[in-house]
Amino acid sequence: MKKKYTLLALILLIISCETVNKNEFAIVIHGGAGTILKENMSNELETAYKNKMKEALDAGYYILKTSGTSIDAVEAAIKILEDSELFNAGRGSVLSNNEEVEMDASIMTGHNLNAGAISGIKHIKNPISLARKVMEESEHVFLSGKGAEDFAVSKGFETIENNSFITERRLNSVRNAKKRDSIQDNKFGTVGCVALDKFGNITSGTSTGGMTNKKWNRIGDVPIIGAGTYANNNTCGISSTGWGEYFIRNVVAYDISSQIDYLKIDINQAAKNTLKKVKDLGGSGGVIGIDKNGNVMMDFNTKGMYRGYIKSDGEIKIEIYQ
Amino acid sequence: MKKKYTLLALILLIISCETVNKNEFAIVIHGGAGTILKENMSNELETAYKNKMKEALDAGYYILKTSGTSIDAVEAAIKILEDSELFNAGRGSVLSNNEEVEMDASIMTGHNLNAGAISGIKHIKNPISLARKVMEESEHVFLSGKGAEDFAVSKGFETIENNSFITERRLNSVRNAKKRDSIQDNKFGTVGCVALDKFGNITSGTSTGGMTNKKWNRIGDVPIIGAGTYANNNTCGISSTGWGEYFIRNVVAYDISSQIDYLKIDINQAAKNTLKKVKDLGGSGGVIGIDKNGNVMMDFNTKGMYRGYIKSDGEIKIEIYQ
Repeated sequence: MKKKYTLLALILLIISCETVNKNEFAIVIHGGAGTILKENMSNELETAYKNKMKEALDAGYYILKTSGTSIDAVEAAIKILEDSELFNAGRGSVLSNNEEVEMDASIMTGHNLNAGAISGIKHIKNPISLARKVMEESEHVFLSGKGAEDFAVSKGFETIENNSFITERRLNSVRNAKKRDSIQDNKFGTVGCVALDKFGNITSGTSTGGMTNKKWNRIGDVPIIGAGTYANNNTCGISSTGWGEYFIRNVVAYDISSQIDYLKIDINQAAKNTLKKVKDLGGSGGVIGIDKNGNVMMDFNTKGMYRGYIKSDGEIKIEIYQ
Repeated sequence: MKKKYTLLALILLIISCETVNKNEFAIVIHGGAGTILKENMSNELETAYKNKMKEALDAGYYILKTSGTSIDAVEAAIKILEDSELFNAGRGSVLSNNEEVEMDASIMTGHNLNAGAISGIKHIKNPISLARKVMEESEHVFLSGKGAEDFAVSKGFETIENNSFITERRLNSVRNAKKRDSIQDNKFGTVGCVALDKFGNITSGTSTGGMTNKKWNRIGDVPIIGAGTYANNNTCGISSTGWGEYFIRNVVAYDISSQIDYLKIDINQAAKNTLKKVKDLGGSGGVIGIDKNGNVMMDFNTKGMYRGYIKSDGEIKIEIYQ
């Protein structure tokens, strides 16, 4: 008799483990972290940011809801953020020291650990789509500069003028930064997205124009698999935004995944531990992620982070400040 | 009385843990992994490889023995390997599809998690020295292409003609590969070094010409902190050599470190676990490392790996085949 109850309890436990915190599918995005303060933001601009994030989330959510794949959802959401002037990626990218746009992006799929990354792109409208193409149709993971653009052209991508990415706002920013001889403006513009689809597959993607006034063809954490982007169906998907150098040195995205894997802790605690390491070295920024059970994480140690998610149970959140 | 014995046992245990396997300092190098078979190697060539590895190890060992730093030891050893035509790094680098040398390198110091990396270098004699300069004298971790070379020139580096890196042997290789339209020759030429100095500081460095017949400014694992190179005084230092794409996707160097950190397993078991993941995805290669106690690891899942170490207790090993 006692044995039967034990068995019943065990079955109930297994069922509850499977259902608690289990989201069928989910999507989370970020649009960069940094010194983003309510007192410096007009109501109109705040609404514009929130509307654009909603548009990106909705595009990905619709794909997931209609049984599309997480990679299609991530690409669709990031393209919307890249095409917006509001965020530092695609059109609206910050400018390098020589007043050009140089973009980086990466994508990774968690079911097969495939990955694609590009850096120093100047003439491709949607860098995230090129990162996906590198993953799906080259023998390589990471292509750069002119070579990456030659690959793009060989795959039918259209090239556009570099100045079609450039906005008045970013031109003013870089000229001010050059006067101060500074690369650091405390805003880490990057866009990113992580999605879990109905098939249990996680995809992560990240895209950026890098740092204002960057020199010497600097590569940040965004195209570095393990730092800016990581996805593994057995653990989680992560996209980072922050002071790239510190995110590379701390292997941020993979450090979160490996804690889930090896320490068996949850994604929120893992992210907290990793961001503390970044802060201890002197860096700052944020991360978003989804674990294999659909738990969504958004964490940062800056004043604000453009961020939002939609879960399959309908829960939606879009926030900017702490 | 019982308490006293427990205390005594505890003290003895602590002492034994501290002394067992503790090497005051150590240096380990690799010169690439792949299908390296005794039947394809002349005695003269084998001797040349072993002598050059001995020369590199001795140079680093001398620095460590005379209370120099691990970063000086790693740079000195790698420069000797880069300057040799035998290895795929510096002079003797394999050629890209357009018959040029394009070199990548990275370095990381374990006491402060500082790192420097470069990719797509065509005119700097010793890429490892440029990676060190990026770490020590730029605000960035990773510079690429022409920008990285402009940085080098601004720091007083001399530039040399690309064809001064090119050897007859590598020119034949790339022309054969182009005929076969193959990028994969089952030899992953890379050189790397990890050293632990008397001050307990670990440095790791890696340098390469990449893959024969590579296209599109491909970047492999060598300049990726966490994949090709990682160092942390609390765990270990690692340098990788292998099919770069698989090493990036598995975040190889950091995966070994994180297992030591989170699973509390030894460096040999951690390396074995990580190389199994690489193999399961379809890749191959090898890793070398030293943990914080001076335990040296050299592991690979190919037919051979040019490798060797010297420990402070005088133990020396230089090997090529399985």
